[in-house]
Amino acid sequence: MPASPKVTAVDPLPSAEAKWIEFQKISWTDQTGKPRIWESASRKTRGASGVDAVAISTVIRHPSRPPSTIIILQFRPPVDAICVEFPAGLVDAKETPADASLRELHEETGYKGKLSYISPTIVSDPGMSTANMQLATVEVNLKEGDTEPEQALDDGEFIERVVVPLEELYERLEKYSEEGKRVDARLWHWAAGLHFAKTML
Amino acid sequence: MPASPKVTAVDPLPSAEAKWIEFQKISWTDQTGKPRIWESASRKTRGASGVDAVAISTVIRHPSRPPSTIIILQFRPPVDAICVEFPAGLVDAKETPADASLRELHEETGYKGKLSYISPTIVSDPGMSTANMQLATVEVNLKEGDTEPEQALDDGEFIERVVVPLEELYERLEKYSEEGKRVDARLWHWAAGLHFAKTML
Repeated sequence: MPASPKVTAVDPLPSAEAKWIEFQKISWTDQTGKPRIWESASRKTRGASGVDAVAISTVIRHPSRPPSTIIILQFRPPVDAICVEFPAGLVDAKETPADASLRELHEETGYKGKLSYISPTIVSDPGMSTANMQLATVEVNLKEGDTEPEQALDDGEFIERVVVPLEELYERLEKYSEEGKRVDARLWHWAAGLHFAKTML
Repeated sequence: MPASPKVTAVDPLPSAEAKWIEFQKISWTDQTGKPRIWESASRKTRGASGVDAVAISTVIRHPSRPPSTIIILQFRPPVDAICVEFPAGLVDAKETPADASLRELHEETGYKGKLSYISPTIVSDPGMSTANMQLATVEVNLKEGDTEPEQALDDGEFIERVVVPLEELYERLEKYSEEGKRVDARLWHWAAGLHFAKTML
């Protein structure tokens, strides 16, 4: 029975000790020609693709169930909470973002699907970091009687997957949030766009 | 005539020099009880609300035009590109996120509206930073003949606003991306959710 993960200490991290991220002092000239400085954080793991990470919006179709997507729940130390996210992960050094999408979806959820679309490179928090990503759409077509596949997690990875009918996604995220879980902003925006189309247009 | 902003140098930033962001070394215990370390970046500007930033999804309704939203274009040094985003900004020290949403929308776009909804606190990139935000929905109801309002930008702020019919938003973001602009992941996800509702359900 796994214990609850928890943060035990938060200390300042000197730049020289950081292994996964780095700070950058960016010198730039603005629209008036004035020299300025911007501070930014950056991942050290970006590989040949030039893209840090992928996330996967999955559509599961089944003969007798409503169209669904898969979200994952995992503890995220930076925000000291269980986070609710699309399946996602870093792109390996020599991997393409498309391959990373299918690999991560399989590892984190057990599902194998067909990549139907991958977004251009988009930026995760461009006022603060260089982090970028691509959003994939993967279609999974199930037959009657197909059983739920096994996840393929690494040792030490604890990720819960949840299949959610698309019609219920937004309300489900609201509920997780009320329970104290933290919804990833990108997943929230996707669900909010879907909800907006149903309720505001 | 403003010049093109540009990055002139990127240097390592020692933690002790950083004014706006900081690095954290997070000690945590995982689900097996094993002690682990996570590296994270954090904004130093978070105020009493506990929320770093807000973004605003606006709905402009007009008697004879299709329902539209407002997006903004601005140069972002961390990604050395013009970024396409929802209007957004940091929450001031003693401000509520709801007040910040109406203030930022007015400053960046000139529009004043009615806040119809604000999301729970959501996390921008929880594998890498503590950054969090709330997403507001603001409704702007225009009458026939209303003219486009003036932006209320600070000196040195260069922000272009674009009113886009919601029906065209996704294609517009694809086009900006093809032109070399960088779309913010959260705006992209919102538009992708809206597009998904129209095309995949």
